Amino acid sequence: MTTEQRTVEPFDAVDLIRRKRDRGELTTEEIRWLVDAFTRGYVVDEQMSALAMAILLNGMGRREIKDLTLAMIDSGERLNFDGLGKTTVDKHSTGGVGDKITLPLMPLVAAFGVAVPQLSGRGLGHTGGTLDKLESIPGWRADLSNAEIREQLRDVGGVICAAGAELAPADKRLYALRDTTGTVEAIPLIASSIMSKKIAEGTAALVLDVKFGSGAFMREYDRAEELARTMVELGRDAGVNTAALLTDMNAPLGLAIGNANEVRESVEVLAGGGPADVVELTVALAREMLAQAGQPDADVEAALADGRAMDVWRRFVVAQGGDPDAALPEPRHTHTVRAEAAGVVAGQEALPFGIAAWRLGAGRARQQDPVVHAAGIDLHVKPGDAVVAGQPLYTLSADEEGRFPRALEALEGALTLDAPGTEVSRGPIVAARIG
Amino acid sequence: MTTEQRTVEPFDAVDLIRRKRDRGELTTEEIRWLVDAFTRGYVVDEQMSALAMAILLNGMGRREIKDLTLAMIDSGERLNFDGLGKTTVDKHSTGGVGDKITLPLMPLVAAFGVAVPQLSGRGLGHTGGTLDKLESIPGWRADLSNAEIREQLRDVGGVICAAGAELAPADKRLYALRDTTGTVEAIPLIASSIMSKKIAEGTAALVLDVKFGSGAFMREYDRAEELARTMVELGRDAGVNTAALLTDMNAPLGLAIGNANEVRESVEVLAGGGPADVVELTVALAREMLAQAGQPDADVEAALADGRAMDVWRRFVVAQGGDPDAALPEPRHTHTVRAEAAGVVAGQEALPFGIAAWRLGAGRARQQDPVVHAAGIDLHVKPGDAVVAGQPLYTLSADEEGRFPRALEALEGALTLDAPGTEVSRGPIVAARIG
Repeated sequence: MTTEQRTVEPFDAVDLIRRKRDRGELTTEEIRWLVDAFTRGYVVDEQMSALAMAILLNGMGRREIKDLTLAMIDSGERLNFDGLGKTTVDKHSTGGVGDKITLPLMPLVAAFGVAVPQLSGRGLGHTGGTLDKLESIPGWRADLSNAEIREQLRDVGGVICAAGAELAPADKRLYALRDTTGTVEAIPLIASSIMSKKIAEGTAALVLDVKFGSGAFMREYDRAEELARTMVELGRDAGVNTAALLTDMNAPLGLAIGNANEVRESVEVLAGGGPADVVELTVALAREMLAQAGQPDADVEAALADGRAMDVWRRFVVAQGGDPDAALPEPRHTHTVRAEAAGVVAGQEALPFGIAAWRLGAGRARQQDPVVHAAGIDLHVKPGDAVVAGQPLYTLSADEEGRFPRALEALEGALTLDAPGTEVSRGPIVAARIG
Repeated sequence: MTTEQRTVEPFDAVDLIRRKRDRGELTTEEIRWLVDAFTRGYVVDEQMSALAMAILLNGMGRREIKDLTLAMIDSGERLNFDGLGKTTVDKHSTGGVGDKITLPLMPLVAAFGVAVPQLSGRGLGHTGGTLDKLESIPGWRADLSNAEIREQLRDVGGVICAAGAELAPADKRLYALRDTTGTVEAIPLIASSIMSKKIAEGTAALVLDVKFGSGAFMREYDRAEELARTMVELGRDAGVNTAALLTDMNAPLGLAIGNANEVRESVEVLAGGGPADVVELTVALAREMLAQAGQPDADVEAALADGRAMDVWRRFVVAQGGDPDAALPEPRHTHTVRAEAAGVVAGQEALPFGIAAWRLGAGRARQQDPVVHAAGIDLHVKPGDAVVAGQPLYTLSADEEGRFPRALEALEGALTLDAPGTEVSRGPIVAARIG
């Protein structure tokens, strides 16, 4: 019943879906056609959804994933930073709770004369979005033209802005579909989605922060490692120097989870302070990025200590219309949770804290919803800390008091205390390097 | 990210898709909600497609299939033939090449005072549709109101008509989706699709003709058997006396493949003649239906021989506006293929004959296309027949000569000859009975 179509189109979508369903392989030409026909609207959403489910359950080979990534790139425009006179290096994180690392990291790396074109997204669900956090800064804007990006990379050294609609548009459509069809967690689709945008963005080098643990997209270490390897291979196949760090996302990163409070914490790091785990991960990723950019011996800590990174930050905020000295939004209501008894903080589960912050208004339920910049959670303790009865454990912030009950519900059991004096071991943030 | 929806809807579609994707089970309430929400348009096509693919690959348990079937039934109206003063029995075939059995079968069974409410479909692809075949008869109409169906069951004893749009409408929508998303071949979905319509139709008993072989929907015997068992269980769970025959669809049924020519062949059977395999299957199914209806000892052959079945046929055609004596459409062009050498017909593959008849115009490529009633294929030999060089093997009929080349292409190798004198064994049409 599909033969009539073959006279106009080289392939039939149902044949290709059935092939993948039956554990077969798709050829390069078939994958290119699928993505092109999806972009044109000839292959429809329900067909792509069924295919995505078949890919999730039956997988894809390395060559197929590469073909899919290249086809996604070819669905849109490709940026080119040649002739900038600087090497370009970017970072991508698979997302976590309290993950504000892009904010101190971009200025830190750019302080070494490297161009950092950080094209970012907005948050959906329990992991926040870098652009949402930065929009807490009065005046700061996320949308830059390609010419503005180029100019700012030359003058400031770094940019954090929204990826244009023309960057891998087929991936954008597929991603929206995966979100509503239970097909987000397919490694071939995650890898090609991330890498198509990063390769299209034109960066020469790339460091991936692939997270595992309760607050991560990939909870299991093995799955995170598989994703990291797949993306490193894809990057190299496309001529991008790529490495990945596998990092722990069982507990929130730092003490701030939200938007404005994460900006505040980032500024502390840029001022040479900040929570130890945020500094540790920022420094580790900066070292990787600078190594990929040809500066393996860069003294990263020095640039935090002596204000060079802060200087780039301030120029970056100004260049994108913001006021680095403006007061950040403050919450209308706060609610502090205290220790009922003395003890040692044993567990601090990232996922419930992420969900609670999202319920407080820090994240969005639907793409079109706004975020509340002053909403979120401030932690007062980290795993291993000793507490006395009545000591504040964390403070919730929201614009409406009615948000607290459901946030507190999500947090039930999220923070556990062991008996006073118990030794709580804290593993390193960076578990492994791939590349 | 789905919590906001939970305040209005009891479940979240993405959660349920993910459950089935991860090999989990859906509860009765979840399945009922899914079908209802799909009917209301809250669960969208791409979500249902992803779910269908997950069901195809991961299966469903017996309780889940039953729940799905009942939910499909509840999406629309239910017919009720109580108070008719007759027991009702229906037949459903999974479809095959040259399968015109409903045409002689309905009058044959109705001749025994049993009511046969045969709500049928149109053909799509290489298997023909019963209504398309009957529409070759000038004046005959497929659309009857529920009141007309009831009246005709009382007066004539049988009806063959289109299932109303209100019968399991959720199944109709899902079926259309499965057709374009490579998810047709899922046994839980096939079984619930067929059985929801048959149970909603209100028949007291049902005989299923589940075909296996090259021209069948389910090529492998084991898969056909699994489908048959699933449907028999579903029927019984719903209080319908159900049995299934597993029948051979490796070669076309009878000598006629098309529309008008299949009506002609059916009338031959009703006149006491016709090809042996068509008679064999018609009689076997009539016996099953009559046994389910409480007449296990009915002398089925006698009703063909003495004209009682023909009498019901003629009254049925008239009742639905047709003229049983009118000339049937004749083709404008024919093309006969002859034996190149002497031999014995060894193979006659159903699928290529089905595809060729479809390409000649007997079937439709798209739901909205018309069929050409005089198009099709007339076989002149059956497996086991000896032929001499130059003897006609089959004749193609079409309204345009341009249809022949692609039909002949499909038929290449479809009919094979062994050396003269070779013994060709012909197995029975009915391979097994389940019930």
